[in-house]
Parts: sequence; C-alpha cells; structure tokens
Amino acid sequence: MDALLVGPSADLRYLAGYHALPLERLTLLVVPVSGEPVLVVPELERPRAEDSGAGDVARIASFGETDDPYNLVRAALPNGPSRIAAGDRMWTMFLLALQDSFPSASFSRSSAITGPLRIRKDESEIDALRRAGAGADAVAAGLAGEKAAGKSELAVSRWIADSLIAQGHERVNFAIVASGPNAASPHHEPGERVLEHGDALVCDFGGTVDGYCSDITRTFCVGEPPDEFMDAYAVLAKAQDAAVSAVRPGVAAEAVDAAARSVIADAGYGDAFIHRTGHGIGLEEHEVPYIVAGNTEPLEPRMAFSIEPGIYLGGRFGMRIEDIVVVTADGAERLNNAPRNPIVLT
Amino acid sequence: MDALLVGPSADLRYLAGYHALPLERLTLLVVPVSGEPVLVVPELERPRAEDSGAGDVARIASFGETDDPYNLVRAALPNGPSRIAAGDRMWTMFLLALQDSFPSASFSRSSAITGPLRIRKDESEIDALRRAGAGADAVAAGLAGEKAAGKSELAVSRWIADSLIAQGHERVNFAIVASGPNAASPHHEPGERVLEHGDALVCDFGGTVDGYCSDITRTFCVGEPPDEFMDAYAVLAKAQDAAVSAVRPGVAAEAVDAAARSVIADAGYGDAFIHRTGHGIGLEEHEVPYIVAGNTEPLEPRMAFSIEPGIYLGGRFGMRIEDIVVVTADGAERLNNAPRNPIVLT
Repeated sequence: MDALLVGPSADLRYLAGYHALPLERLTLLVVPVSGEPVLVVPELERPRAEDSGAGDVARIASFGETDDPYNLVRAALPNGPSRIAAGDRMWTMFLLALQDSFPSASFSRSSAITGPLRIRKDESEIDALRRAGAGADAVAAGLAGEKAAGKSELAVSRWIADSLIAQGHERVNFAIVASGPNAASPHHEPGERVLEHGDALVCDFGGTVDGYCSDITRTFCVGEPPDEFMDAYAVLAKAQDAAVSAVRPGVAAEAVDAAARSVIADAGYGDAFIHRTGHGIGLEEHEVPYIVAGNTEPLEPRMAFSIEPGIYLGGRFGMRIEDIVVVTADGAERLNNAPRNPIVLT
Repeated sequence: MDALLVGPSADLRYLAGYHALPLERLTLLVVPVSGEPVLVVPELERPRAEDSGAGDVARIASFGETDDPYNLVRAALPNGPSRIAAGDRMWTMFLLALQDSFPSASFSRSSAITGPLRIRKDESEIDALRRAGAGADAVAAGLAGEKAAGKSELAVSRWIADSLIAQGHERVNFAIVASGPNAASPHHEPGERVLEHGDALVCDFGGTVDGYCSDITRTFCVGEPPDEFMDAYAVLAKAQDAAVSAVRPGVAAEAVDAAARSVIADAGYGDAFIHRTGHGIGLEEHEVPYIVAGNTEPLEPRMAFSIEPGIYLGGRFGMRIEDIVVVTADGAERLNNAPRNPIVLT
C-alpha cells in the first residue's frame, strides 16, 4: 500500500485518538507509506480535533466551507499513490470523490491493515472491556428483579438503556427487547407489544465504557416457561458452554462456531440457529474476528469476541445466550458472568 | 442511470420504509430502471425487514451467513447495468465489493436521484418536523429555569438528552454543551468543565420524532454577561433575523447565507463566522439544501433547513442562534420559537 485513508470511525479513534463526528464534510486521516501523516478536517472541527491530541500523530490541516478539501488530500500525497487502502466504513460519497482525485490508483479496504492491529487487545483495552462487561452484567442481574408482565418492550428497552448509563456506560448502542413470537427475530426492534405470561423474553444490549463496547444477551421467561421452551433452552446452554470451552490459542475461529452448532444440530434444532456464533468486539460492537464457518484464522491470546448461539422458532419463541470472552494463554476468560439460567420474571 | 443501490440510510427509510441497522452484513435495496426492485437482507434481518412493510415496494431476498450476498445483487440486475447510483452513505467496504461485482459500470452518488425527492417535504413530514421543533423548544425553555453554575457540561448535556425523551422524542442524536472558551468550538464535545459565572453557554441539540429531526441552538449566559458579549450577541440576533427574512421561494440558498454574513461582517466579526448559515433537515440532521456560498439552487416551498449563524472568538467565547424554518408560499415559517434573547442562568 502507498497510503491509508481513514474517515470518522473506530480506525481513526484507534490510530489518532480522534472521535470524529460522521458528517457530510470530509474528515480524513491521510497516512502515506513514508512522509508526514495529515489529518484533514473542516475548519469548524479544528478545535475538537486539536483537543483530541491527534496533532501528536498527524499534522492537522483544515479547510473553509467553500474550499475543496480534496486539494489538501492531494497535497498530502504528492507522489501520486497507486495503491490506496480506504476506510471500510467511509461513506461512498467520499470514496467516489477520492477515486476521482486519484484516477489511476486502485482502492482496497483499510481493514487489511487495521484489522490485524486491532484484533489483539492490550491490557488497557481488556480492562475497559472488563468494566463494560461488569456494567452490562449488573443491568442483566437487575432485570431479574423487575416486574415484566404488563410492560411494553419499549418500556423495558428504556429501563435497560437508563440502567446502562447508571452502571457507568457513557453511551448506549442498542437495547433489543423481543418478547413472545418477536423473540424469534434476532434483531427485533422493541415496540409497543405488552409482555404477558408465557412469553420468552430476549434482551440483548450494549454500550460503551471509555469507548469500548459491552454486548450481552440473556433470555428470560415471563411466568413459568412451557416444557418445550425449557428443553430447547437446555440445548442452547450446553451449546454456549461447548463453544466457550472450545476457545484456546491455535484453534480456528470456525471450530468455535462448529462446537456450538453441532450441539444444537444434534438436538434437532440445526435449522433454527440462523446466524454465526459470534463477532469480535472492541471499539466497535462488531469487528474481527468473526466466529463463523469459513473463518480458518487461528485464535490468539488477547482476541475478544462474543459467543452467542441462538434458537429461533418462527411464530413461537426464540432464545439466545451471549457472553464476551477474551482468549487467554490456555482458554477463555468470560467477561460476562450474570446468571445464565432462564430467569422467571413476574 | 440503470440502477439505484441503497444501503441502510435515510434514503432506504424514505424509499422503502425500512429503518435498517448499519451492520457489516450487506443490506441493499436494488432498484433497476425497469423491472422488479429487490431488497437484499441477511437471513437474520428478514423478520425485521418484513415487519417494516418494505415487502410492499420490493421483493425481499435473504442470504445465509456463509453465502455470497453479491450473487443476489447480480441476479437482481441481469442486464449488466453500466451506470449505477450508489447510496451516498453506503460504506466503502460495500461499494468496493459492488465495483468488483460490476467491473464495467460507472458509479455515482444516489443523492442525484434521492435529493430532489426528499428536499420538498409533504404535509406529514412537515407535521413531524413541527412536533420535533416544539419538543426541542420545550427543552430550551426548560433549560432557562435550571441552575447552571457548578454543573459540568456533561451533566447539562445529560439533562438535555433526558428532557428530549420526556418531551416525546424517540431518540437523541446529539446534545452539545459548550461553556466559556469551549463555546468558541462549534462542535465541542461536552466534558467535565464546570460552568462558572461569566461563562457563555452554547447548547445545540436534537433528536427525532417519528424519524424526523429537531435541531436547535440557544446561547445562555451564566451570571450577568460582559458588555462585549452583549454587543456581539446583538449583531448575531440581527444576522439571524436577516437570514430568516431573506427566505422565500425563488431566492438562491446562498443569498440567505449572504444575508446573515453581511450583517456579521459589517459589524467587524466576519472572520469569526467560520461556518455556513445552515443545512437542510428531515430524516437526517444534515441534508440538502445547504445554505452556503456557492449554492445557487433557488428555494422552493416545503424545503426545510436550519438558520444558524455564529460568532466564535477563540479562547474567549462563542455564540450561535439556530432555528429550523420551512419555506412557505411567500416567506418562512419558524419551527423553533423558544426565546432567542440571551437568557441569564444562575
């Protein structure tokens, strides 16, 4: 690569410490393979960029409202780069303009460079993930003491969001609450449905502590659960344990997925586990490594990811158990330890 | 154009009613110039996509975790499009994959198609913007009754966020609180600085009501303001009024910017007004039309945008007054009506 171009994103925060707003004005960290890195920002964002400390790793160059910011990008790359790595999450409007600015260059994804840097967490990152996990655990444990029947999904979702802040999160990223048949939709958007006795209740939520993400899922029952629910839940809990037990350095990411999937398939629920087993986590909720069939990448110490098998029976109910784990020298440390048995809510 | 490709974004919500999560799995509305539109979604998002009603305008096609989703995109465009409009805010990782999928096609921004559709709001959109504006007004008015001295910026920001929800917003997009010298940074991130007597206090916040955005800025003083602050504020208020008065059908967007800028420049603060006068608003906080020098587009009835001149004196203080307006048959309707005089907080 001749240059790395990164817009507002976790990559930018990781590389330069700048938590930039994703806006329609260009913000771009330009890193040439040799020479001075330049952070191009709108003039009105300059104070915020300076406050971030990004000036320690890059020269800050700003443009006025009626200037062409791509002049600054071209000036930062005077040698006419032929291979450019562009931020995975940069907006198309910026990539198209950069392709026009460097018409003879080939563009590829920045994650080829930043993924391997970010995938192994250092001690301070793991510490932040631990604190995020502990905050999420406290919210999950607190949920068990709440009355559920008669409340709407939206009301429970807001309670979770408020509780995450009360537990030291600076930000809530999402708070899925899926009840009854809605629980069969893994990414259900909480709505006005009122919880009633006999419902399964999937709560999947997360936010950030010092920029690092939490992500936990617990499945509850409103009132005594039916036998078919408990039968499936026992399979799911066994699958989640099997996947956590499979984690150790050198094991392929896909082997962890297979460990959960084989337990669920052997019990006859294979078609009901419709997603991968997990995703990496750090400055982003979803990042490398992905715990999915086809990912042969061997696990290494200090990788952090979710283990979250689920069983979804359309029109009836759904369930998921999710913990974040960090790979240790010889296994996995769970960062979530809230009770995993299906808690009966009143 | 032969095809329009839109990922999770306001465009997707506008065209198909689907409020999709921006995730690393592909979600893409494929609209060929003739033939059937197809919404490509991950299998686990299918229930959410179906619930949105998007199936009324497009066939929903889903892919499993280990499938190649671009096969579905190619199948939806069997004629090999040569000109493709791609969503302005689609992530680079998706655009690069689409460019690989259609190597002989030229790509351009979707906003050339969706901008002109979204720029004129219909009655239901204006109604949502009005309700969002009224909610933001109530929060701004409520701030005037709060004690400020001794609180941190972050505490005031959280009060604003909670109040927006209490006033009927479903979501908070941002709550800038910038005090004292921080007020000279237009997009200051609220921090631990404690408000003290003599501070200017810029509060700029917004969220959504039924998906449509609010955005208001009011400038307060903590204790009696110094004369130099009041002198600059009088200029700013006159500039904001002049810009609102300049709004009517047929006037160029840049003329509204010039109306505010000339008042501020004539008073000697020209260099301190470092951003454009405003931005369109709707499903996004910032959208067309931009009220900026160089935008000669004539205003039309039912366009909605902010008018928010500011004066920023580095190291000392800053100020901004922002209202959302809608163009009427012969002028502008202000959607924000909270008091605009600089309110003295204790």
